[in-house]
Amino acid sequence: MIKAAILGATGYTGSELVRLIQGHPKIELLFLSSESSTGEAYSKIHPQFRERINIELQPLSIDLLPNSVELVFCALPHGQSAAVVPALLDRGLKVIDLSSDYRLKDPTLYQSWYDLNHPHPLLLSSAVYGISELYQDQIMAAKLIANPGCYPTSIILGLAPLLSSGLANLETIIIDSKSGVSGAGRTPKQPFHFPDCTENFKAYRVLSHQHTPEIEQELGRLAGEKVTITFTPHLVPMIRGIFSTIYTKLLKKVSIEELTAIYADYYRESFFIRILDQNSLPETRFIRGTNYCDLALRFDRRTGFLVIMSAIDNLIKGASGQAIQNMNISYGWPEETGLLQFAI
Amino acid sequence: MIKAAILGATGYTGSELVRLIQGHPKIELLFLSSESSTGEAYSKIHPQFRERINIELQPLSIDLLPNSVELVFCALPHGQSAAVVPALLDRGLKVIDLSSDYRLKDPTLYQSWYDLNHPHPLLLSSAVYGISELYQDQIMAAKLIANPGCYPTSIILGLAPLLSSGLANLETIIIDSKSGVSGAGRTPKQPFHFPDCTENFKAYRVLSHQHTPEIEQELGRLAGEKVTITFTPHLVPMIRGIFSTIYTKLLKKVSIEELTAIYADYYRESFFIRILDQNSLPETRFIRGTNYCDLALRFDRRTGFLVIMSAIDNLIKGASGQAIQNMNISYGWPEETGLLQFAI
Amino acid sequence: MIKAAILGATGYTGSELVRLIQGHPKIELLFLSSESSTGEAYSKIHPQFRERINIELQPLSIDLLPNSVELVFCALPHGQSAAVVPALLDRGLKVIDLSSDYRLKDPTLYQSWYDLNHPHPLLLSSAVYGISELYQDQIMAAKLIANPGCYPTSIILGLAPLLSSGLANLETIIIDSKSGVSGAGRTPKQPFHFPDCTENFKAYRVLSHQHTPEIEQELGRLAGEKVTITFTPHLVPMIRGIFSTIYTKLLKKVSIEELTAIYADYYRESFFIRILDQNSLPETRFIRGTNYCDLALRFDRRTGFLVIMSAIDNLIKGASGQAIQNMNISYGWPEETGLLQFAI
Amino acid sequence: MIKAAILGATGYTGSELVRLIQGHPKIELLFLSSESSTGEAYSKIHPQFRERINIELQPLSIDLLPNSVELVFCALPHGQSAAVVPALLDRGLKVIDLSSDYRLKDPTLYQSWYDLNHPHPLLLSSAVYGISELYQDQIMAAKLIANPGCYPTSIILGLAPLLSSGLANLETIIIDSKSGVSGAGRTPKQPFHFPDCTENFKAYRVLSHQHTPEIEQELGRLAGEKVTITFTPHLVPMIRGIFSTIYTKLLKKVSIEELTAIYADYYRESFFIRILDQNSLPETRFIRGTNYCDLALRFDRRTGFLVIMSAIDNLIKGASGQAIQNMNISYGWPEETGLLQFAI
Repeated sequence: MIKAAILGATGYTGSELVRLIQGHPKIELLFLSSESSTGEAYSKIHPQFRERINIELQPLSIDLLPNSVELVFCALPHGQSAAVVPALLDRGLKVIDLSSDYRLKDPTLYQSWYDLNHPHPLLLSSAVYGISELYQDQIMAAKLIANPGCYPTSIILGLAPLLSSGLANLETIIIDSKSGVSGAGRTPKQPFHFPDCTENFKAYRVLSHQHTPEIEQELGRLAGEKVTITFTPHLVPMIRGIFSTIYTKLLKKVSIEELTAIYADYYRESFFIRILDQNSLPETRFIRGTNYCDLALRFDRRTGFLVIMSAIDNLIKGASGQAIQNMNISYGWPEETGLLQFAI
Repeated sequence: MIKAAILGATGYTGSELVRLIQGHPKIELLFLSSESSTGEAYSKIHPQFRERINIELQPLSIDLLPNSVELVFCALPHGQSAAVVPALLDRGLKVIDLSSDYRLKDPTLYQSWYDLNHPHPLLLSSAVYGISELYQDQIMAAKLIANPGCYPTSIILGLAPLLSSGLANLETIIIDSKSGVSGAGRTPKQPFHFPDCTENFKAYRVLSHQHTPEIEQELGRLAGEKVTITFTPHLVPMIRGIFSTIYTKLLKKVSIEELTAIYADYYRESFFIRILDQNSLPETRFIRGTNYCDLALRFDRRTGFLVIMSAIDNLIKGASGQAIQNMNISYGWPEETGLLQFAI
Repeated sequence: MIKAAILGATGYTGSELVRLIQGHPKIELLFLSSESSTGEAYSKIHPQFRERINIELQPLSIDLLPNSVELVFCALPHGQSAAVVPALLDRGLKVIDLSSDYRLKDPTLYQSWYDLNHPHPLLLSSAVYGISELYQDQIMAAKLIANPGCYPTSIILGLAPLLSSGLANLETIIIDSKSGVSGAGRTPKQPFHFPDCTENFKAYRVLSHQHTPEIEQELGRLAGEKVTITFTPHLVPMIRGIFSTIYTKLLKKVSIEELTAIYADYYRESFFIRILDQNSLPETRFIRGTNYCDLALRFDRRTGFLVIMSAIDNLIKGASGQAIQNMNISYGWPEETGLLQFAI
Repeated sequence: MIKAAILGATGYTGSELVRLIQGHPKIELLFLSSESSTGEAYSKIHPQFRERINIELQPLSIDLLPNSVELVFCALPHGQSAAVVPALLDRGLKVIDLSSDYRLKDPTLYQSWYDLNHPHPLLLSSAVYGISELYQDQIMAAKLIANPGCYPTSIILGLAPLLSSGLANLETIIIDSKSGVSGAGRTPKQPFHFPDCTENFKAYRVLSHQHTPEIEQELGRLAGEKVTITFTPHLVPMIRGIFSTIYTKLLKKVSIEELTAIYADYYRESFFIRILDQNSLPETRFIRGTNYCDLALRFDRRTGFLVIMSAIDNLIKGASGQAIQNMNISYGWPEETGLLQFAI
C-alpha cells in the first residue's frame, strides 16, 4: 500500500479525496492537515466518516509528515499551495496539487488573473497539467501534477478532439458554463447562504473568471496556436455538477457522424469519457458522484454552429476524482482503479 | 370593474392570472374553465386560494360565458386556443391568448415547428404580438393579443435596443437560456418528477425549441432583415425564473457606456425594465414573483463579443404578468397597475 | 400616512417589513437603520427593490429618527432590542419589537434561556405579547408590542382553542416542528451553507430551543395553569415555512366534528386562520408568502391522541406579517390591510 | 459468483440494487425485468449506467429466468410480488422481496391496510422479516426474506434496544417521521411534480400510513406484548433520507448514560448502527447513499419524555442496501460486503 497525505483535508475536495482513497485498494492515508481544525478527529468535522476515519488533524507542517509517506495531495487554497509544494518536492515526494498554483506555464498570467506574484515561477515548466486523458505519458513521469480546475476539465475535454483535428474556426469559441455550488468551496459566504442561493440562477465573474487563462493555455496547445475564449460561468442551485455548453464554427463542412467518429476515436481508450449519440443529451445527475465526463454534439444547419455539451461532477472529475485518476496513471495502475462508482 | 374570464384556469399560467387579477383594482373574474376539474371549486384545485376564490370550474364552452364578460384570457394548450379564439372574437370579446397559437405571422412556420396545420391562418395577421414594451400602440388597438412565450420575452427584451440601433452583427447571435421547471407546465412527467429533476442540470430541445421562430420573427422585425439564431434552452432545478445569456458581436466600436445609454434611452418609459450598471448582474431571485426584466451588458475586449444577460420570472413577465400588463395598456390604465409586487 | 422607521432593516425580517410596508396603503417608511451597511442605498443590499426603494441606510442612533416618525419596528438581534426600546418609548413612539427581548414576562426565564440579564425587566409587564388573534384589545392599547417568535406563533395558534376549552390533557404536549432555513437569519454560517444544507434534514437544539419558555408562558395563560411542553425543532431544506405537528390527549371523549366546531368558533372573526376539513391537510406552499395560518385536526381512535397540524410562513405570520397585522389592529385599521397576498 | 435476477428493475429500489450489486464482489446480475420497458437496454432507462450495464430488459416471466440464477430480488409493486413469489420458491430459488407483501404475519392486517386479499396467506409465517440487525439467524435459514419498509426500518432500529430492555412505557409511542421524495417511487404524480414539491413541507396519510401494522408487529415482538403507535409521516423536499423523531416515556428512572450503554450493547456487533453521543445529532446527509442508521437519544428532564432520533437512507438501509445486507447474511458473507460506501 502506498502511503499518502492530504494537506487541507477538511474542504470539499479534501473530503472527497478521503472518501475516494478509503475505497481505493492500493493506497492508505497516514496524514491529514487542517489549519482550522488542528487536533480534532477527522470524523468530528465530517461526521459521514464516523467510526471509520478518526485520524487526528495536524497542522500544516511538512516536518510532521511520516517518513513512509511518498505521495501528497495538496488541497489547499491557491497561494498556500504555491508556498508549500517546493519543500515537498525537495523531500522527494510525489505531489498532486489541486490548487491553481502550478497550472499556468506563464507566471505573468498567474500574476494578472490571481493578483499574486508566483513565488516559484521556475517550477511551472516542470509541472504537468493533469488532464488525465491528454497527458498520460507526462503524468507517468511527473513529480508535480497540477490537477486541473473544474470548469477547465469540462471544457478542455469537450473541445480537445475538435481542436486537435484542426477543424475548428478559432475566431468564435463561446463557452457558457453552469456549476453547482460546491465549486465555491466550503467556507460560508452570503451568495451561498441557503435562502439566498436556492431557487436562484445567476451569472458571476462574467468574462473575468480566473480559470480563463488555464483553459486558453490548454486549448492553445491542442490547436497549435493562440486561442481566446468568451467564457461566462453561472451558478446552479444544486450541490454538484458542471455543465458546459460550447459554441463554435467549423472551418469546413463535416457531418455530425464524422464529428462523432472523430470524438469516439480520440477517446477510444478513455474509460471515463462517454460520447452520447444524437438521441441523448448529458444531464449532471447521470455523472453525479462519478469520474465520468459525458459529451454530446449537435450541429445547427441553420446557422453553421456546432454545439458541444459536456457534463462532469465538479468535485470528482473536476477535482478529487481526476487527482486519483492521475495517481493511478502515475503508479501504472488502471486509470479507473477505485473510481468505478455510478451516480446514485 | 371589467368582467373577465379565464379559459384553462388550473394550469400554472391560469393560477397566476387568478392571483394577479385578485389583486388588481379594475378587473373582476366571472368565469373560470377547466376540462380536467369541471365542477370543482377553484380553491379545491389550488388550496392557496382557500376561503377567497371558490368559483366553480366550468367546461370549455363559450356559450356558458356570462354576457357581462368582455375580456377573455386563453391559458389553454396550443392547438386548443387556435380553435376557440375565433368564436370569442366573433362574440365581440377582447382576447389575450397566452398560448403560442397566434404568435407567428407565417402559418408555414407554425406548421413546421408545432407539427399542426393552423386552423385559422387568416387571423394571424390581425393578432398583435404582445411584448408590452415594443408594441404599445398596436396593443391599445388590438382585439387579439398573442401573449409572447417566456424565452422569447427574455430574449427580445434583451436584444431590442441593440437590433433597433443597427449596431449588431447579425451573423452571430447565440442564445443560451436557462429556465425554471414551472415553464414545463403543471402536468406531471418523468423529467420533472422531483427526484429526477432536483440536483440536476441539463439542456433540452437543443437547436429545436418551438420558441425559435417566434424569437426570429421579432428580432427580424427589429433588425429590419432576416435574423437566424442559435438557441439552446436548459432546465434549472428551481420553480421560477428564466435567465438568458446572449452573445453577439458589434458592427463597429461602441463603448459599454454608449451601449448602456442606448438601452436606457430605449426603455426610458418602460417601468418594468431595469438596466443594471457595470457593478451588478441579474439574478432570478431579484425578479422572482414580479413583472420586472433585469438586463445587464458586458463587453469582452479580448474577443469582441458583447454579452447580454436578461432575467425574468417565466410565469409573470414571461406569461401572466405580461398578459395583465397588456390588458392594462389595452384599457388605457397605467401599465404597472396591479403589478407592483416585489420579489419575496 | 403614518410615518415609520425600521431598526435593523437589512435582515430577512427587516426586508420583509420593507416589502410589506411598500404595499400598505396607510404607512410610509422614513428611516431604515443598518449597522453593517450604513450609508448604502437600501436597494444595493436588497436588489429586488432596485429603482423603487433607495433610502440611505442610517446608523442605529435614535437621535437620527425624523420627528415625524411615530412608529418603530425593531428587527434587531435579541439583546440589541432590549437596550434600545426604552429610549424609543421615552420619546413617545409606538414600538413593535420583533426580537425576543420583551416577550417573556419573567426576567429569570430570559436569563436562563438567553443567558443574558434583562436590562429593563420592569418593562416586561407592560409589553403586550402580539399574537394578533388572541390579544386584540391589549394590542390596541399597547405602546410596546412584543411580536411573537415564528415557532410560538404556529404552536400557540394551533393549541389556543383546545387549551381555552379545557379539553386538553396537559400531561402530554409534544410538539414536533419543522422550519425553513430563513428562520436562522441572514448571516452565513456553516449549517446553512447551501451544499451542507440542501438535500438534508436534521433536528437541532432538541429540548433546548429558546422559544420554549415563550410557548409555555402563552399556553399556560390559555390553560389557566402551568404547561410544560416537549419541543423538537427541525430544519427543512426550503427557504420559508414552519409546519408544527402537535400531539396531545383529551380529558374526555369529543368527536372530531365537535373539536373542529370549537376551533371554527374560536377563530370565527380571524381572517388569517383557516381551519381545514377532514379531507385536507396543510402544506407550507399554500401559505408561503402570506399571513395565513392553516390548521388541521386528526384524531387517532387507536391511541386516543389528537394530532394538530399548523402551517405558517415563518417570515410573515411568524414575524413581519404579524407585525403589520398588529400595527393594523393598533391603529384601528382592518387587520388584513396590506396583507391580502396569496401564495405564489 | 452467485447469479441473481431482479424483477422490477427500473424503479428506484431496482436501480439501487443494480448499482449496489455492480460493486459487490460475490454476485452477478443475469436477468432484469421491466413491464414498462421490455426490450430496452437497461442503460437506456437509467443512463448513469451507460457503457457498463446494457442487459436487455425482459418481461416478468419466470420461465425466462436463466437456470443458473439462484437468487431473486423482487422490487415489484405490492400485489404483484405476492403473486409471483410462490413460483420462485417452488423453483427452489432464494427470494428477497422488497415489497410489503410478505411482511405482515396476519393476513387480516394486510387486507385492512392494503385493501387486498392476500393470495398466499400460508406463506406469511415462513417469511422472515428482514431487519438485518434483529433476525440474523432466521435470515440465514430463510428461503423468503420480506425486506422491511423504509419507515419501519428507521423506527424499529430506533426502538429495539429500548423495547427489548422492558424500560419503555408502551402507553405513549409517538413517531413523527420525515421522508425524502424518492420514497414515493419513480412514477410521476402531481404531489411529486417538481414545482409542487420543492420548497414545500407537508404531512400525508396522517394516522393511516400502510407501514403502521408492520411497525406495530415488530415492536410488539420486541416488547413481548401488543404495541400501538401514533404515526405521522411527512414529505421533505429532498431526494433521499428518512428522519424519525420518536417520543416515549420510561417506566423507571434511567440515566441517559445508562440508556446509551443499553443501545451500544444491543448493537455492539452491528456494523451499520452508529450511536451518537450527547454532543451530536443525526443528519440525513451523513448517511445519504449509505447503509448506516445513525441514532441519538435525548431525555427531557422537564417532562420525562425520551426522544429517539433515527436517520437512514430510505433507498439503501430502508430498501436495497438492507436487501444486500440480508443477502450477505444469508450467504454467510460479512454483512458489510459491498456496502462500505460513505455519504458523498
